[in-house]
Amino acid sequence: MSERRSVLRISTDNAPATAAGPGATMAAVAVSVREPDTVVAEEPLEIRVGRLGEPHLPLAVTMRTPGADLDLALGFLFTEGLIATHEDVVTAQLCAGTDEPNTYNVVDVTLGVHVPQPDTDLSRNFYTTSSCGVCGKASIDAVRTRSRFDISTDPITVLAGALASLPDRLRLAQRTFDRTGGLHAAGLFTAGGDLICVREDVGRHNAVDKVVGWALRAGGLPLAGHVLLVSGRASFELVQKASMAGVPVLAAVSAPSTLAVDLAEEFGLTLVGFLRGATMNVYARADRVGV
Amino acid sequence: MSERRSVLRISTDNAPATAAGPGATMAAVAVSVREPDTVVAEEPLEIRVGRLGEPHLPLAVTMRTPGADLDLALGFLFTEGLIATHEDVVTAQLCAGTDEPNTYNVVDVTLGVHVPQPDTDLSRNFYTTSSCGVCGKASIDAVRTRSRFDISTDPITVLAGALASLPDRLRLAQRTFDRTGGLHAAGLFTAGGDLICVREDVGRHNAVDKVVGWALRAGGLPLAGHVLLVSGRASFELVQKASMAGVPVLAAVSAPSTLAVDLAEEFGLTLVGFLRGATMNVYARADRVGV
Repeated sequence: MSERRSVLRISTDNAPATAAGPGATMAAVAVSVREPDTVVAEEPLEIRVGRLGEPHLPLAVTMRTPGADLDLALGFLFTEGLIATHEDVVTAQLCAGTDEPNTYNVVDVTLGVHVPQPDTDLSRNFYTTSSCGVCGKASIDAVRTRSRFDISTDPITVLAGALASLPDRLRLAQRTFDRTGGLHAAGLFTAGGDLICVREDVGRHNAVDKVVGWALRAGGLPLAGHVLLVSGRASFELVQKASMAGVPVLAAVSAPSTLAVDLAEEFGLTLVGFLRGATMNVYARADRVGV
Repeated sequence: MSERRSVLRISTDNAPATAAGPGATMAAVAVSVREPDTVVAEEPLEIRVGRLGEPHLPLAVTMRTPGADLDLALGFLFTEGLIATHEDVVTAQLCAGTDEPNTYNVVDVTLGVHVPQPDTDLSRNFYTTSSCGVCGKASIDAVRTRSRFDISTDPITVLAGALASLPDRLRLAQRTFDRTGGLHAAGLFTAGGDLICVREDVGRHNAVDKVVGWALRAGGLPLAGHVLLVSGRASFELVQKASMAGVPVLAAVSAPSTLAVDLAEEFGLTLVGFLRGATMNVYARADRVGV
Protein backbone atom coordinates (compact mmCIF):
# COMPACT_ATOMS: atom_id res chain seq x y z
CA MET A 1 0.00 0.00 0.00
CA SER A 2 3.00 2.30 0.36
CA GLU A 3 6.63 2.65 -0.66
CA ARG A 4 9.69 4.51 0.56
CA ARG A 5 10.94 7.61 -1.20
CA SER A 6 13.79 9.96 -0.32
CA VAL A 7 12.51 13.38 0.70
CA LEU A 8 14.02 16.71 1.67
CA ARG A 9 12.16 17.95 4.74
CA ILE A 10 12.37 21.72 5.12
CA SER A 11 11.37 23.83 8.08
CA THR A 12 11.40 27.60 7.78
CA ASP A 13 11.56 29.89 10.78
CA ASN A 14 8.87 32.20 9.54
CA ALA A 15 5.18 31.87 10.06
CA PRO A 16 3.38 31.95 6.71
CA ALA A 17 3.52 35.56 5.58
CA THR A 18 -0.10 36.15 4.69
CA ALA A 19 -0.11 39.87 5.24
CA ALA A 20 3.50 40.51 4.29
CA GLY A 21 4.60 41.75 0.91
CA PRO A 22 6.22 39.53 -1.69
CA GLY A 23 9.71 40.33 -0.46
CA ALA A 24 9.03 39.89 3.23
CA THR A 25 9.79 36.18 3.38
CA MET A 26 12.97 36.34 1.34
CA ALA A 27 15.25 36.70 4.35
CA ALA A 28 13.83 33.65 6.12
CA VAL A 29 16.26 31.03 7.40
CA ALA A 30 15.34 27.41 6.80
CA VAL A 31 16.78 24.09 7.87
CA SER A 32 16.53 20.94 5.82
CA VAL A 33 17.23 17.25 6.27
CA ARG A 34 17.09 14.44 3.72
CA GLU A 35 15.47 11.23 4.93
CA PRO A 36 13.22 8.41 3.75
CA ASP A 37 9.47 9.03 3.66
CA THR A 38 6.55 6.65 3.34
CA VAL A 39 4.48 7.50 0.26
CA VAL A 40 1.10 6.03 -0.68
CA ALA A 41 1.30 3.74 -3.71
CA GLU A 42 -0.59 4.74 -6.86
CA GLU A 43 -0.58 2.48 -9.92
CA PRO A 44 -2.95 1.91 -12.83
CA LEU A 45 -5.29 -1.07 -12.74
CA GLU A 46 -6.73 -2.29 -16.01
CA ILE A 47 -10.05 -4.12 -15.70
CA ARG A 48 -10.76 -6.51 -18.57
CA VAL A 49 -13.95 -8.47 -19.17
CA GLY A 50 -14.88 -11.41 -21.38
CA ARG A 51 -16.51 -14.83 -21.56
CA LEU A 52 -14.89 -18.18 -20.84
CA GLY A 53 -12.58 -19.16 -23.70
CA GLU A 54 -12.88 -15.77 -25.37
CA PRO A 55 -10.40 -12.90 -25.34
CA HIS A 56 -10.88 -10.43 -22.50
CA LEU A 57 -11.16 -6.81 -23.60
CA PRO A 58 -10.08 -3.77 -21.58
CA LEU A 59 -13.07 -1.97 -20.08
CA ALA A 60 -11.47 0.61 -17.82
CA VAL A 61 -8.20 1.82 -16.37
CA THR A 62 -8.29 3.31 -12.90
CA MET A 63 -5.47 4.84 -10.89
CA ARG A 64 -5.51 2.99 -7.58
CA THR A 65 -3.53 1.91 -4.54
CA PRO A 66 -2.60 -1.78 -5.04
CA GLY A 67 -4.39 -4.14 -2.69
CA ALA A 68 -7.88 -5.67 -2.68
CA ASP A 69 -7.72 -5.49 -6.48
CA LEU A 70 -10.35 -8.17 -7.03
CA ASP A 71 -12.70 -6.35 -4.63
CA LEU A 72 -12.03 -3.17 -6.58
CA ALA A 73 -12.69 -4.76 -9.97
CA LEU A 74 -15.90 -6.48 -8.88
CA GLY A 75 -17.10 -3.45 -6.94
CA PHE A 76 -16.49 -1.27 -10.00
CA LEU A 77 -18.43 -3.63 -12.27
CA PHE A 78 -21.27 -3.75 -9.73
CA THR A 79 -21.57 -0.02 -9.04
CA GLU A 80 -21.42 0.62 -12.80
CA GLY A 81 -24.39 -1.70 -13.20
CA LEU A 82 -22.52 -4.22 -15.36
CA ILE A 83 -22.99 -7.19 -12.98
CA ALA A 84 -25.83 -7.79 -10.55
CA THR A 85 -24.66 -10.67 -8.33
CA HIS A 86 -21.56 -12.70 -7.57
CA GLU A 87 -23.08 -15.45 -9.72
CA ASP A 88 -22.56 -13.24 -12.78
CA VAL A 89 -18.82 -13.76 -12.33
CA VAL A 90 -17.24 -17.09 -13.32
CA THR A 91 -13.70 -16.11 -12.31
CA ALA A 92 -11.84 -12.95 -11.39
CA GLN A 93 -8.07 -13.10 -11.32
CA LEU A 94 -4.92 -11.11 -11.69
CA CYS A 95 -3.83 -11.40 -15.30
CA ALA A 96 -1.83 -14.41 -16.48
CA GLY A 97 -0.82 -15.31 -20.02
CA THR A 98 1.64 -12.49 -20.51
CA ASP A 99 5.38 -11.99 -20.37
CA GLU A 100 5.05 -8.60 -18.71
CA PRO A 101 6.47 -8.52 -15.19
CA ASN A 102 3.77 -6.37 -13.59
CA THR A 103 0.74 -8.52 -14.27
CA TYR A 104 -0.66 -7.42 -10.93
CA ASN A 105 -1.90 -4.30 -12.66
CA VAL A 106 -4.50 -6.18 -14.72
CA VAL A 107 -7.59 -8.00 -13.49
CA ASP A 108 -9.40 -10.37 -15.85
CA VAL A 109 -13.07 -10.90 -15.02
CA THR A 110 -14.79 -13.80 -16.77
CA LEU A 111 -18.54 -13.23 -16.99
CA GLY A 112 -21.28 -15.87 -17.17
CA VAL A 113 -22.85 -16.50 -20.58
CA HIS A 114 -26.12 -15.00 -19.30
CA VAL A 115 -24.50 -11.63 -18.55
CA PRO A 116 -24.76 -8.95 -21.26
CA GLN A 117 -21.25 -8.27 -22.53
CA PRO A 118 -20.30 -4.72 -21.48
CA ASP A 119 -19.73 -2.42 -24.42
CA THR A 120 -15.98 -1.96 -24.48
CA ASP A 121 -16.19 0.45 -27.42
CA LEU A 122 -18.34 3.05 -25.77
CA SER A 123 -18.00 4.57 -22.37
CA ARG A 124 -20.10 6.65 -20.10
CA ASN A 125 -17.16 8.94 -19.52
CA PHE A 126 -16.13 9.53 -23.12
CA TYR A 127 -19.21 8.73 -25.09
CA THR A 128 -20.51 9.50 -28.54
CA THR A 129 -23.71 11.00 -29.86
CA SER A 130 -24.21 13.50 -32.64
CA SER A 131 -27.45 15.08 -31.47
CA CYS A 132 -27.32 18.60 -30.14
CA GLY A 133 -30.67 18.28 -28.37
CA VAL A 134 -29.03 16.05 -25.80
CA CYS A 135 -27.34 18.99 -24.07
CA GLY A 136 -27.20 19.01 -20.31
CA LYS A 137 -29.89 16.47 -19.61
CA ALA A 138 -28.23 13.84 -21.76
CA SER A 139 -24.89 14.59 -20.18
CA ILE A 140 -26.15 13.82 -16.74
CA ASP A 141 -28.18 10.89 -18.03
CA ALA A 142 -25.03 9.52 -19.60
CA VAL A 143 -23.25 9.35 -16.26
CA ARG A 144 -26.26 8.09 -14.33
CA THR A 145 -26.66 4.46 -13.33
CA ARG A 146 -29.89 2.73 -12.22
CA SER A 147 -29.92 0.93 -8.89
CA ARG A 148 -31.65 -2.40 -8.48
CA PHE A 149 -32.52 -1.48 -4.90
CA ASP A 150 -35.05 0.96 -3.44
CA ILE A 151 -33.25 2.46 -0.46
CA SER A 152 -36.03 4.99 0.20
CA THR A 153 -38.03 2.37 2.13
CA ASP A 154 -35.12 1.15 4.30
CA PRO A 155 -36.41 1.37 7.91
CA ILE A 156 -32.98 2.01 9.45
CA THR A 157 -32.65 4.65 12.15
CA VAL A 158 -29.30 5.69 13.54
CA LEU A 159 -28.59 7.81 16.59
CA ALA A 160 -26.64 11.03 16.19
CA GLY A 161 -24.35 9.90 19.00
CA ALA A 162 -23.54 6.70 17.14
CA LEU A 163 -22.83 8.66 13.94
CA ALA A 164 -20.52 10.99 15.85
CA SER A 165 -18.43 8.02 16.93
CA LEU A 166 -17.80 6.69 13.42
CA PRO A 167 -14.94 8.91 12.17
CA ASP A 168 -12.74 8.02 15.15
CA ARG A 169 -13.52 4.34 14.70
CA LEU A 170 -12.60 4.59 11.03
CA ARG A 171 -9.38 6.44 11.77
CA LEU A 172 -8.46 3.90 14.43
CA ALA A 173 -8.79 1.10 11.86
CA GLN A 174 -7.08 3.17 9.18
CA ARG A 175 -4.14 4.14 11.32
CA THR A 176 -2.96 0.55 11.22
CA PHE A 177 -2.50 0.80 7.48
CA ASP A 178 -1.97 4.42 6.65
CA ARG A 179 1.32 6.00 7.57
CA THR A 180 1.32 8.17 4.46
CA GLY A 181 -1.38 10.79 5.06
CA GLY A 182 -2.43 10.17 1.48
CA LEU A 183 -5.06 7.47 1.70
CA HIS A 184 -8.80 7.86 1.52
CA ALA A 185 -10.85 5.36 3.50
CA ALA A 186 -14.35 3.96 3.24
CA GLY A 187 -15.87 2.14 6.22
CA LEU A 188 -19.00 0.04 6.41
CA PHE A 189 -20.81 0.14 9.76
CA THR A 190 -23.90 -1.35 11.36
CA ALA A 191 -26.61 1.04 12.51
CA GLY A 192 -25.20 0.61 16.02
CA GLY A 193 -21.77 1.81 14.94
CA ASP A 194 -19.83 -1.46 14.63
CA LEU A 195 -17.18 -1.40 11.90
CA ILE A 196 -17.63 -4.31 9.48
CA CYS A 197 -15.24 -3.52 6.64
CA VAL A 198 -12.69 -0.82 5.91
CA ARG A 199 -10.85 -0.29 2.65
CA GLU A 200 -8.30 2.34 1.67
CA ASP A 201 -7.22 3.84 -1.63
CA VAL A 202 -5.60 6.93 -3.08
CA GLY A 203 -8.99 7.46 -4.78
CA ARG A 204 -12.07 7.69 -2.62
CA HIS A 205 -14.27 6.17 -5.33
CA ASN A 206 -11.97 3.17 -5.40
CA ALA A 207 -12.14 2.81 -1.61
CA VAL A 208 -15.95 2.60 -1.87
CA ASP A 209 -15.77 0.16 -4.79
CA LYS A 210 -13.44 -2.05 -2.72
CA VAL A 211 -16.00 -2.15 0.11
CA VAL A 212 -18.82 -2.94 -2.32
CA GLY A 213 -16.75 -5.63 -4.04
CA TRP A 214 -15.98 -7.18 -0.66
CA ALA A 215 -19.71 -7.22 0.15
CA LEU A 216 -20.51 -8.73 -3.25
CA ARG A 217 -18.04 -11.55 -2.70
CA ALA A 218 -19.38 -12.10 0.83
CA GLY A 219 -22.95 -12.30 -0.44
CA GLY A 220 -23.86 -9.20 1.55
CA LEU A 221 -25.57 -7.09 -1.11
CA PRO A 222 -27.76 -5.10 -0.87
CA LEU A 223 -26.25 -3.35 2.15
CA ALA A 224 -29.66 -2.60 3.69
CA GLY A 225 -29.56 -1.32 7.27
CA HIS A 226 -25.93 -0.20 7.02
CA VAL A 227 -24.01 3.07 7.16
CA LEU A 228 -21.18 3.92 4.75
CA LEU A 229 -18.62 6.48 5.94
CA VAL A 230 -16.14 8.15 3.59
CA SER A 231 -13.13 10.12 4.75
CA GLY A 232 -13.47 12.97 2.27
CA ARG A 233 -16.24 14.78 0.47
CA ALA A 234 -19.59 13.45 -0.71
CA SER A 235 -19.79 13.82 -4.47
CA PHE A 236 -22.45 12.85 -6.98
CA GLU A 237 -20.58 9.65 -7.76
CA LEU A 238 -20.35 8.49 -4.13
CA VAL A 239 -24.10 9.00 -3.64
CA GLN A 240 -24.67 7.00 -6.79
CA LYS A 241 -22.38 4.17 -5.65
CA ALA A 242 -24.14 4.04 -2.25
CA SER A 243 -27.49 3.82 -4.01
CA MET A 244 -26.25 1.08 -6.35
CA ALA A 245 -25.11 -0.97 -3.34
CA GLY A 246 -28.37 -0.43 -1.44
CA VAL A 247 -26.78 1.56 1.41
CA PRO A 248 -29.46 3.76 3.09
CA VAL A 249 -27.09 6.10 4.98
CA LEU A 250 -23.97 7.82 3.55
CA ALA A 251 -21.85 9.91 5.89
CA ALA A 252 -18.88 12.05 4.89
CA VAL A 253 -16.25 13.78 7.00
CA SER A 254 -16.26 16.73 4.60
CA ALA A 255 -18.70 18.67 2.41
CA PRO A 256 -21.30 17.38 -0.04
CA SER A 257 -22.07 18.95 -3.42
CA THR A 258 -25.43 20.24 -4.62
CA LEU A 259 -25.80 17.30 -6.98
CA ALA A 260 -25.01 14.87 -4.16
CA VAL A 261 -27.76 16.45 -2.04
CA ASP A 262 -30.26 16.47 -4.92
CA LEU A 263 -29.59 12.83 -5.82
CA ALA A 264 -29.75 11.75 -2.17
CA GLU A 265 -33.21 13.32 -1.93
CA GLU A 266 -34.26 11.63 -5.16
CA PHE A 267 -32.99 8.21 -4.04
CA GLY A 268 -34.22 8.49 -0.44
CA LEU A 269 -30.65 8.29 0.87
CA THR A 270 -29.79 9.79 4.24
CA LEU A 271 -26.83 12.07 3.54
CA VAL A 272 -24.66 13.30 6.42
CA GLY A 273 -21.83 15.78 5.85
CA PHE A 274 -19.20 17.52 7.97
CA LEU A 275 -19.30 14.62 10.43
CA ARG A 276 -16.59 15.93 12.77
CA GLY A 277 -16.22 15.80 16.51
CA ALA A 278 -19.68 15.93 18.05
CA THR A 279 -21.40 17.76 15.19
CA MET A 280 -22.81 16.93 11.77
CA ASN A 281 -25.09 18.27 9.05
CA VAL A 282 -27.89 16.10 7.65
CA TYR A 283 -28.68 17.13 4.07
CA ALA A 284 -31.33 14.57 3.12
CA ARG A 285 -33.72 12.13 4.81
CA ALA A 286 -32.95 13.46 8.30
CA ASP A 287 -35.94 11.48 9.59
CA ARG A 288 -33.66 8.46 9.97
CA VAL A 289 -31.30 10.24 12.40
CA GLY A 290 -32.33 10.09 16.04
CA VAL A 291 -31.37 13.08 18.15
CA MET B 1 -20.47 28.49 -7.51
CA SER B 2 -22.78 27.51 -4.65
CA GLU B 3 -26.46 27.09 -3.82
CA ARG B 4 -28.58 27.05 -0.68
CA ARG B 5 -29.92 23.80 0.74
CA SER B 6 -31.90 23.16 3.92
CA VAL B 7 -29.84 21.22 6.45
CA LEU B 8 -30.42 19.73 9.89
CA ARG B 9 -27.44 20.68 12.05
CA ILE B 10 -26.96 18.26 14.95
CA SER B 11 -24.69 18.66 17.93
CA THR B 12 -24.27 15.75 20.34
CA ASP B 13 -23.05 16.22 23.88
CA ASN B 14 -20.62 13.33 23.71
CA ALA B 15 -17.08 13.42 22.53
CA PRO B 16 -16.56 10.78 19.82
CA ALA B 17 -16.53 7.46 21.65
CA THR B 18 -13.40 5.89 20.22
CA ALA B 19 -12.59 3.66 23.13
CA ALA B 20 -16.15 3.05 24.29
CA GLY B 21 -18.17 0.03 23.35
CA PRO B 22 -20.88 0.08 20.70
CA GLY B 23 -23.58 0.84 23.25
CA ALA B 24 -21.73 3.62 25.05
CA THR B 25 -22.99 6.44 22.85
CA MET B 26 -26.60 5.36 22.81
CA ALA B 27 -27.59 7.52 25.79
CA ALA B 28 -26.17 10.70 24.31
CA VAL B 29 -28.39 13.75 24.15
CA ALA B 30 -28.29 15.78 20.97
CA VAL B 31 -29.72 19.09 19.88
CA SER B 32 -30.69 19.90 16.33
CA VAL B 33 -31.71 22.94 14.33
CA ARG B 34 -32.89 23.21 10.73
CA GLU B 35 -31.43 26.09 8.72
CA PRO B 36 -30.17 26.97 5.24
CA ASP B 37 -26.64 25.91 4.32
CA THR B 38 -24.38 26.94 1.47
CA VAL B 39 -23.43 23.93 -0.64
CA VAL B 40 -20.85 23.85 -3.43
CA ALA B 41 -22.41 23.44 -6.87
CA GLU B 42 -21.62 20.32 -8.87
CA GLU B 43 -23.02 19.83 -12.37
CA PRO B 44 -21.93 17.91 -15.45
CA LEU B 45 -20.15 19.74 -18.26
CA GLU B 46 -20.14 18.16 -21.69
CA ILE B 47 -17.24 19.19 -23.90
CA ARG B 48 -17.92 18.82 -27.62
CA VAL B 49 -15.45 19.35 -30.46
CA GLY B 50 -15.80 19.80 -34.21
CA ARG B 51 -14.85 21.87 -37.22
CA LEU B 52 -16.57 25.00 -38.50
CA GLY B 53 -19.85 24.08 -40.20
CA GLU B 54 -19.66 20.47 -39.06
CA PRO B 55 -21.53 18.79 -36.20
CA HIS B 56 -19.74 18.92 -32.86
CA LEU B 57 -19.33 15.54 -31.18
CA PRO B 58 -19.19 14.92 -27.42
CA LEU B 59 -15.65 14.23 -26.27
CA ALA B 60 -15.98 14.16 -22.50
CA VAL B 61 -18.33 14.76 -19.61
CA THR B 62 -16.80 16.06 -16.41
CA MET B 63 -18.50 16.78 -13.09
CA ARG B 64 -17.56 20.34 -12.26
CA THR B 65 -18.49 23.49 -10.37
CA PRO B 66 -20.07 25.93 -12.88
CA GLY B 67 -17.94 28.96 -13.64
CA ALA B 68 -14.92 29.52 -15.89
CA ASP B 69 -16.37 26.83 -18.14
CA LEU B 70 -14.52 27.98 -21.24
CA ASP B 71 -11.25 27.98 -19.29
CA LEU B 72 -12.07 24.46 -18.12
CA ALA B 73 -12.88 23.19 -21.61
CA LEU B 74 -9.78 24.69 -23.21
CA GLY B 75 -7.54 23.67 -20.30
CA PHE B 76 -8.87 20.12 -20.55
CA LEU B 77 -8.22 19.97 -24.30
CA PHE B 78 -4.72 21.37 -23.75
CA THR B 79 -3.65 19.15 -20.86
CA GLU B 80 -5.02 16.13 -22.75
CA GLY B 81 -2.74 17.07 -25.65
CA LEU B 82 -5.59 17.68 -28.11
CA ILE B 83 -4.75 21.33 -28.78
CA ALA B 84 -1.36 23.03 -28.65
CA THR B 85 -2.07 26.77 -28.77
CA HIS B 86 -4.96 29.20 -28.61
CA GLU B 87 -4.70 29.46 -32.41
CA ASP B 88 -5.93 25.86 -32.66
CA VAL B 89 -9.32 27.08 -31.42
CA VAL B 90 -11.62 29.01 -33.78
CA THR B 91 -14.38 29.53 -31.22
CA ALA B 92 -15.33 28.18 -27.82
CA GLN B 93 -18.81 28.90 -26.56
CA LEU B 94 -21.57 27.70 -24.33
CA CYS B 95 -23.88 25.60 -26.46
CA ALA B 96 -26.57 27.26 -28.57
CA GLY B 97 -28.88 25.68 -31.10
CA THR B 98 -30.90 23.63 -28.64
CA ASP B 99 -34.25 23.90 -26.90
CA GLU B 100 -32.89 22.55 -23.64
CA PRO B 101 -32.97 25.11 -20.84
CA ASN B 102 -29.59 24.29 -19.27
CA THR B 103 -27.34 24.90 -22.26
CA TYR B 104 -24.73 26.22 -19.85
CA ASN B 105 -23.72 22.62 -19.24
CA VAL B 106 -22.33 22.16 -22.75
CA VAL B 107 -19.29 23.83 -24.29
CA ASP B 108 -18.78 23.64 -28.05
CA VAL B 109 -15.17 24.05 -29.16
CA THR B 110 -14.61 24.66 -32.86
CA LEU B 111 -11.14 23.56 -33.91
CA GLY B 112 -9.06 24.91 -36.78
CA VAL B 113 -8.88 22.81 -39.95
CA HIS B 114 -5.18 22.12 -39.26
CA VAL B 115 -5.93 20.47 -35.89
CA PRO B 116 -6.25 16.67 -35.89
CA GLN B 117 -9.86 15.82 -35.01
CA PRO B 118 -9.87 14.15 -31.56
CA ASP B 119 -11.07 10.59 -31.66
CA THR B 120 -14.51 10.77 -30.07
CA ASP B 121 -15.00 7.02 -30.36
CA LEU B 122 -12.03 5.97 -28.28
CA SER B 123 -10.96 7.23 -24.93
CA ARG B 124 -7.92 6.99 -22.81
CA ASN B 125 -10.11 6.11 -19.84
CA PHE B 126 -12.27 3.42 -21.41
CA TYR B 127 -10.23 2.23 -24.32
CA THR B 128 -10.09 -0.86 -26.48
CA THR B 129 -7.36 -3.25 -27.44
CA SER B 130 -7.44 -6.99 -27.73
CA SER B 131 -3.80 -7.74 -26.99
CA CYS B 132 -2.95 -9.38 -23.69
CA GLY B 133 0.70 -8.41 -23.92
CA VAL B 134 -0.25 -4.85 -23.18
CA CYS B 135 -0.76 -5.53 -19.47
CA GLY B 136 0.45 -2.99 -17.00
CA LYS B 137 2.80 -1.05 -19.20
CA ALA B 138 0.15 -0.39 -21.82
CA SER B 139 -2.31 0.61 -19.12
CA ILE B 140 -0.06 3.34 -17.88
CA ASP B 141 0.93 4.28 -21.43
CA ALA B 142 -2.74 4.64 -22.27
CA VAL B 143 -3.25 7.28 -19.62
CA ARG B 144 0.03 9.06 -20.32
CA THR B 145 0.22 12.27 -22.29
CA ARG B 146 3.34 13.79 -23.88
CA SER B 147 4.27 17.35 -23.02
CA ARG B 148 5.52 19.75 -25.66
CA PHE B 149 7.72 21.42 -23.03
CA ASP B 150 10.93 20.30 -21.32
CA ILE B 151 10.51 21.53 -17.78
CA SER B 152 13.68 19.78 -16.58
CA THR B 153 15.83 22.68 -17.83
CA ASP B 154 13.72 25.47 -16.28
CA PRO B 155 16.22 27.58 -14.26
CA ILE B 156 13.66 28.67 -11.63
CA THR B 157 14.68 28.69 -7.99
CA VAL B 158 12.22 29.39 -5.22
CA LEU B 159 12.94 30.07 -1.55
CA ALA B 160 11.45 27.78 1.07
CA GLY B 161 10.15 30.83 2.89
CA ALA B 162 8.29 31.96 -0.20
CA LEU B 163 6.81 28.49 -0.67
CA ALA B 164 5.66 28.46 2.96
CA SER B 165 3.68 31.64 2.36
CA LEU B 166 1.69 30.28 -0.59
CA PRO B 167 -1.08 28.26 1.12
CA ASP B 168 -2.22 31.25 3.18
CA ARG B 169 -2.17 33.45 0.11
CA LEU B 170 -4.28 30.91 -1.75
CA ARG B 171 -6.73 30.56 1.13
CA LEU B 172 -7.01 34.33 1.40
CA ALA B 173 -8.03 34.52 -2.26
CA GLN B 174 -10.24 31.46 -1.97
CA ARG B 175 -12.07 32.65 1.12
CA THR B 176 -13.72 35.34 -0.96
CA PHE B 177 -15.42 32.68 -3.06
CA ASP B 178 -15.69 29.59 -0.92
CA ARG B 179 -18.19 29.56 1.91
CA THR B 180 -18.94 25.88 1.39
CA GLY B 181 -15.86 24.03 2.63
CA GLY B 182 -16.23 21.89 -0.48
CA LEU B 183 -14.09 23.59 -3.08
CA HIS B 184 -10.63 22.63 -4.25
CA ALA B 185 -8.41 25.45 -5.41
CA ALA B 186 -5.46 25.76 -7.76
CA GLY B 187 -3.27 28.85 -7.64
CA LEU B 188 -0.62 30.05 -10.06
CA PHE B 189 2.24 32.01 -8.48
CA THR B 190 5.42 33.73 -9.55
CA ALA B 191 8.69 32.41 -8.11
CA GLY B 192 8.56 35.31 -5.66
CA GLY B 193 5.17 34.21 -4.34
CA ASP B 194 2.80 36.61 -6.11
CA LEU B 195 -0.59 35.09 -6.89
CA ILE B 196 -1.44 35.45 -10.58
CA CYS B 197 -4.52 33.30 -11.02
CA VAL B 198 -6.76 31.26 -8.75
CA ARG B 199 -9.53 28.89 -9.83
CA GLU B 200 -11.85 26.73 -7.76
CA ASP B 201 -13.78 23.57 -8.48
CA VAL B 202 -15.34 20.61 -6.71
CA GLY B 203 -12.73 18.58 -8.62
CA ARG B 204 -9.08 19.43 -8.15
CA HIS B 205 -8.21 18.34 -11.71
CA ASN B 206 -10.81 20.78 -13.00
CA ALA B 207 -9.37 23.59 -10.88
CA VAL B 208 -5.97 23.00 -12.52
CA ASP B 209 -7.50 22.77 -16.00
CA LYS B 210 -9.27 26.10 -15.38
CA VAL B 211 -5.92 27.74 -14.52
CA VAL B 212 -4.27 26.22 -17.60
CA GLY B 213 -7.18 27.27 -19.82
CA TRP B 214 -6.92 30.81 -18.46
CA ALA B 215 -3.20 30.83 -19.28
CA LEU B 216 -3.87 29.47 -22.77
CA ARG B 217 -6.37 32.22 -23.50
CA ALA B 218 -3.97 34.84 -22.05
CA GLY B 219 -1.14 33.59 -24.26
CA GLY B 220 0.85 32.60 -21.19
CA LEU B 221 1.79 29.03 -22.04
CA PRO B 222 4.20 27.44 -21.29
CA LEU B 223 4.10 28.49 -17.63
CA ALA B 224 7.91 28.50 -17.33
CA GLY B 225 9.25 30.06 -14.13
CA HIS B 226 5.97 29.61 -12.25
CA VAL B 227 4.73 27.66 -9.24
CA LEU B 228 1.38 25.83 -9.21
CA LEU B 229 -0.21 25.19 -5.80
CA VAL B 230 -3.08 22.75 -5.31
CA SER B 231 -5.19 22.59 -2.15
CA GLY B 232 -5.31 18.80 -1.91
CA ARG B 233 -3.12 15.85 -2.79
CA ALA B 234 -0.61 15.51 -5.62
CA SER B 235 -1.69 12.64 -7.85
CA PHE B 236 -0.25 11.24 -11.04
CA GLU B 237 -2.72 13.27 -13.08
CA LEU B 238 -1.84 16.61 -11.47
CA VAL B 239 1.88 16.02 -12.11
CA GLN B 240 1.02 15.22 -15.71
CA LYS B 241 -1.12 18.35 -16.11
CA ALA B 242 1.68 20.52 -14.63
CA SER B 243 4.13 18.97 -17.09
CA MET B 244 1.78 19.52 -20.02
CA ALA B 245 1.46 23.21 -19.10
CA GLY B 246 5.23 23.64 -18.66
CA VAL B 247 5.05 24.40 -14.93
CA PRO B 248 8.42 23.60 -13.29
CA VAL B 249 7.24 23.56 -9.64
CA LEU B 250 4.11 21.82 -8.30
CA ALA B 251 3.27 22.23 -4.61
CA ALA B 252 0.48 20.45 -2.75
CA VAL B 253 -0.96 21.04 0.69
CA SER B 254 -1.36 17.31 1.18
CA ALA B 255 0.42 14.05 0.26
CA PRO B 256 1.79 12.91 -3.10
CA SER B 257 1.53 9.37 -4.46
CA THR B 258 4.42 7.14 -5.52
CA LEU B 259 3.50 7.58 -9.18
CA ALA B 260 3.39 11.35 -8.75
CA VAL B 261 6.90 11.27 -7.27
CA ASP B 262 8.22 8.92 -9.97
CA LEU B 263 6.76 11.00 -12.82
CA ALA B 264 8.03 14.24 -11.26
CA GLU B 265 11.55 12.79 -11.25
CA GLU B 266 11.15 11.62 -14.84
CA PHE B 267 9.87 15.01 -16.04
CA GLY B 268 12.29 17.09 -13.95
CA LEU B 269 9.42 18.65 -12.01
CA THR B 270 10.02 20.01 -8.52
CA LEU B 271 7.37 18.34 -6.38
CA VAL B 272 6.55 19.76 -2.93
CA GLY B 273 4.10 18.01 -0.61
CA PHE B 274 2.64 18.59 2.85
CA LEU B 275 3.17 22.34 2.40
CA ARG B 276 1.69 23.40 5.73
CA GLY B 277 2.61 26.13 8.17
CA ALA B 278 6.38 26.57 8.05
CA THR B 279 7.24 23.04 6.88
CA MET B 280 7.22 21.08 3.62
CA ASN B 281 8.59 17.94 1.99
CA VAL B 282 10.36 18.12 -1.35
CA TYR B 283 10.00 14.83 -3.22
CA ALA B 284 11.75 15.62 -6.51
CA ARG B 285 14.19 18.20 -7.93
CA ALA B 286 14.88 19.71 -4.52
CA ASP B 287 17.83 21.57 -6.10
CA ARG B 288 15.40 24.32 -7.13
CA VAL B 289 14.34 25.05 -3.52
CA GLY B 290 16.55 27.50 -1.65
CA VAL B 291 16.79 26.97 2.10
